[in-house]
Amino acid sequence: MAQGELLVLFFLALLCKAIAIKSQPSTKEPIISTIDGSFCLSWRLAVETNNELPWRTVPNKCSQYVEDYLIHGQYERDLELIMEQALDYVNGISIVGDGMDAWILDVDDTCLSNIYYYKSKNYGCEPYDPAAFRTWAMRGWCTAVPPVLRLFNKLIDNGFKVILLTGRDKEILGQVTIDNLHNQKFIGYHRLIMRTPVYKGESAVTYKSNVRKNLEMEGYRIWGNVGDQWSDLQGYSCGNRTFKLPNPMYFVP
Amino acid sequence: MAQGELLVLFFLALLCKAIAIKSQPSTKEPIISTIDGSFCLSWRLAVETNNELPWRTVPNKCSQYVEDYLIHGQYERDLELIMEQALDYVNGISIVGDGMDAWILDVDDTCLSNIYYYKSKNYGCEPYDPAAFRTWAMRGWCTAVPPVLRLFNKLIDNGFKVILLTGRDKEILGQVTIDNLHNQKFIGYHRLIMRTPVYKGESAVTYKSNVRKNLEMEGYRIWGNVGDQWSDLQGYSCGNRTFKLPNPMYFVP
Repeated sequence: MAQGELLVLFFLALLCKAIAIKSQPSTKEPIISTIDGSFCLSWRLAVETNNELPWRTVPNKCSQYVEDYLIHGQYERDLELIMEQALDYVNGISIVGDGMDAWILDVDDTCLSNIYYYKSKNYGCEPYDPAAFRTWAMRGWCTAVPPVLRLFNKLIDNGFKVILLTGRDKEILGQVTIDNLHNQKFIGYHRLIMRTPVYKGESAVTYKSNVRKNLEMEGYRIWGNVGDQWSDLQGYSCGNRTFKLPNPMYFVP
Repeated sequence: MAQGELLVLFFLALLCKAIAIKSQPSTKEPIISTIDGSFCLSWRLAVETNNELPWRTVPNKCSQYVEDYLIHGQYERDLELIMEQALDYVNGISIVGDGMDAWILDVDDTCLSNIYYYKSKNYGCEPYDPAAFRTWAMRGWCTAVPPVLRLFNKLIDNGFKVILLTGRDKEILGQVTIDNLHNQKFIGYHRLIMRTPVYKGESAVTYKSNVRKNLEMEGYRIWGNVGDQWSDLQGYSCGNRTFKLPNPMYFVP
């Protein structure tokens, strides 16, 4: 073989390698081809099905996985499919129309997203930091979760009384939450129920169950209930149908 | 460029293409880089979190995805992680030791696998076929789900009374189920509770809740409850802790 051909071979070998590397899935696609990716997918399923409880932080080795999941499309697709199912259900309901047809939505990571904040906490690999979260929430910079905003608007158009039920402290975060919901176009809800001193120290399950029970005692029919935590959806007076949104960043007992 | 060099270039270009194709993830890894794969992952999450209900068949476009999930490792990894969590919980329990410390396991696709049968039904893309399933179950060829068998043995070693609770018809499938469990090494359980005419026509949630309630009335403490269907784990007297195993093939109301 001539020296010229050998040189051609050498550069083409380099080119081949470059093409081969380029053919790997780009990082914009969900990465599950590694052992860690496969573990993190199992871990995500385990937390979303409420098998792993209570959990305090995201495993360190899943930090990149959770970021990819949240940022590169799969999270939105998961949300959209669930909200499609909720809309199908809504379209099949004949409301009574006496003003007591209610639907409950959680606020944090249901109506309003905290992903931007959790980015600073390594997407949940760092433990819950109540002071830092309060500082974040006080800014009123949370953005709407678009598929949930679409459901919200549909519910109001269809005559439901939308009740927002959140564990946020009313005294500290009351006004900023009202403003943040308004600037993100959550307009026309029936009530915003926040945690008052009466419920201080109670678990989310107990607090939210009690509130829902009181609503039923007032005469409301809870047709649906949407939240990113199982503690939004478990306990009693849970609603005729519940929808669990994904949240691989944190767990609220 | 000499003709020889051109020929080398041509064959190396072919080689490059071959290497590039080979560098794609193999089909033995979970495939989620396509649009359908991404949809099917969302769909799987939606069914595992009980958002999509009731569902009758696997979407046709997810047939390959479900096969890959079940056959190529992710299903086993999901099972293993959940059973690890169950074992952690078991290791932390101090049983009373009066013979009333119970643990409930479902049978189909919890202790015994029906994946081989569901392969013939395109992994759930074809609707439920009670006659064909009965014929399959009558053979007694179901194989153990290995991580569940490990939990089963650990429970017995630790002094729990393991109670198997299944919707299988006692009259038709009683003996074959006993034999199948035995040939798959599920040995030493306390009771096998099957559906008798009393419970005929009842939903799985109602039937299993009633059985569990009766067990509690007999004095059993239900420490844990494992099943592949939410209808194994919902209702009342559910157990102190529940573990939802994955099953993207079918839904039992």
